[in-house]
Amino acid sequence: MAFNHIDPIKAYLLDLQQRLCHCLEQEDGQATFKQDKWKHPEGGGGITCALTGTVIEKAGVNFSHVQGSQLPNTASARRPDLAQARFQALGVSTVIHPNNPYVPTAHMNVRFILVEKKDQAPVWWFGGGFDLTPYYGFSEDCVHWHRTAKQACDPFGQDVYAQYKKWCDQYFFLKHRNEPRGIGGIFYDDLHEWGFNRCFDFMQSVGDHFIKGYQPIVSRRKSHAFGQREKDFQLYRRGRYVEFNLLYDRGTLFGLQSGGRTESILMSLPPLVAWHYDWQAKANTAEEKLYTDFLLPREWVK
Amino acid sequence: MAFNHIDPIKAYLLDLQQRLCHCLEQEDGQATFKQDKWKHPEGGGGITCALTGTVIEKAGVNFSHVQGSQLPNTASARRPDLAQARFQALGVSTVIHPNNPYVPTAHMNVRFILVEKKDQAPVWWFGGGFDLTPYYGFSEDCVHWHRTAKQACDPFGQDVYAQYKKWCDQYFFLKHRNEPRGIGGIFYDDLHEWGFNRCFDFMQSVGDHFIKGYQPIVSRRKSHAFGQREKDFQLYRRGRYVEFNLLYDRGTLFGLQSGGRTESILMSLPPLVAWHYDWQAKANTAEEKLYTDFLLPREWVK
Repeated sequence: MAFNHIDPIKAYLLDLQQRLCHCLEQEDGQATFKQDKWKHPEGGGGITCALTGTVIEKAGVNFSHVQGSQLPNTASARRPDLAQARFQALGVSTVIHPNNPYVPTAHMNVRFILVEKKDQAPVWWFGGGFDLTPYYGFSEDCVHWHRTAKQACDPFGQDVYAQYKKWCDQYFFLKHRNEPRGIGGIFYDDLHEWGFNRCFDFMQSVGDHFIKGYQPIVSRRKSHAFGQREKDFQLYRRGRYVEFNLLYDRGTLFGLQSGGRTESILMSLPPLVAWHYDWQAKANTAEEKLYTDFLLPREWVK
Repeated sequence: MAFNHIDPIKAYLLDLQQRLCHCLEQEDGQATFKQDKWKHPEGGGGITCALTGTVIEKAGVNFSHVQGSQLPNTASARRPDLAQARFQALGVSTVIHPNNPYVPTAHMNVRFILVEKKDQAPVWWFGGGFDLTPYYGFSEDCVHWHRTAKQACDPFGQDVYAQYKKWCDQYFFLKHRNEPRGIGGIFYDDLHEWGFNRCFDFMQSVGDHFIKGYQPIVSRRKSHAFGQREKDFQLYRRGRYVEFNLLYDRGTLFGLQSGGRTESILMSLPPLVAWHYDWQAKANTAEEKLYTDFLLPREWVK
């Protein structure tokens, strides 16, 4: 009953981490990633890559493979029978906060969870996805982003993109603001019904397509001229990212609950953030346009 | 069985709100509070006072009196029998973020909750407290702060300060950082065993002593010279405040869960905040001193 697929997953994830770092270093043009290896108190550990640059104000690309004796509630809410069981979790997670407010913030995560209960067959599932958070929206970027997301999904079934796109819109939603975090992408969890090989192929498709989706957007927006007004709006909007990650994000809460490395988990938080009381975008401004044209569920590709 | 003490509590809280605003306007010397009245969807509402100033970078003083048909989990975790019952909640809450890093951030909340279940005697309790979060610590400020907290408690029993001081140290603690939020103060909840009158007197003592505790500290530190280094450290440390309020704070989560007014609840978040990956204070610096001498439970008064 032993589960022997950990090594290929780990190999893919470590390679994905390197490719992501390379891509972001290329776009930044100057800064390089700093790498930290750390150990988890209950077993396993991770490699955290962090960059502070000029095009990329702050980026983290985190690989982790941790073991624990008690699966946290955030991971097992849908599977109460597995709460408190021994588990392994492997994943790569990245959040990129660009300096230029015309370049959107991006997030991607792919993960695999294995639960082994004594005298029972191992239980495993995949989860992950990617989503985009613009400050000033460009329709062509949103179309490219969602087209790439659809390409990641299409080989796995006709409805996969539609289903995971909807799940993303539902998941990355700030209830207390009645507002989506951004323009979405794809999100999936508890994926096992395709069998191991196909699920693992899907993880790779998601990881690979994230780079294809994000890099061209960074590349074409990073030299867009901006001033203090745009920067202020970006700092303000980044507050929503913090609110989402600390109030709702399952990955963040899973990490903190499972005794993960705090600095690696909270690396997703933006470098500089502003909160203003009761700020509102003025009518007929580019800032208002973000709310009216982009921060709502839309079908960006057919 | 009707409960007829709401009016005097409301009158005290509205007066406290005015006194707090007046005190902060005096310390700022220039800015004045802007006042917003709002209604709660299920009944009641509040008055939010917000200030953006020079000495006081951002302050919120919020009064609310809300009704609801389902007591949120965050309020009823210790009283599962009351979950989902009709309730009223009245309170004043304030968080003050000064501009000068030598002036600590302060928080105070006093609240009253009444739960009325059909055909049963009303159930009520008080909660609240205040705590201080310095960036650069001064022992004399901490002693003054805790001495004032003790004075607030002493008329109510010999062990009250010690007990509520300990509760504060336990409550304002960031588990994921293994770090207290600041130097504490007092915290209490579910208070009813003294009978209504004595409990209500205690609420007033806490509210009144908060002003006596904080104003002299603002006054004597607000002109302390500082530079970018101190400001940077303040912005970084403010991140801990955000993490605490969004990950742990019962009042914040209660407010967001009970359909409170988001802008009033999140007014507690600092105006500008920085997160740096894996930042550490250098040895033998004033920044390190915060961690070694102040961010740990200490007996500031005998």
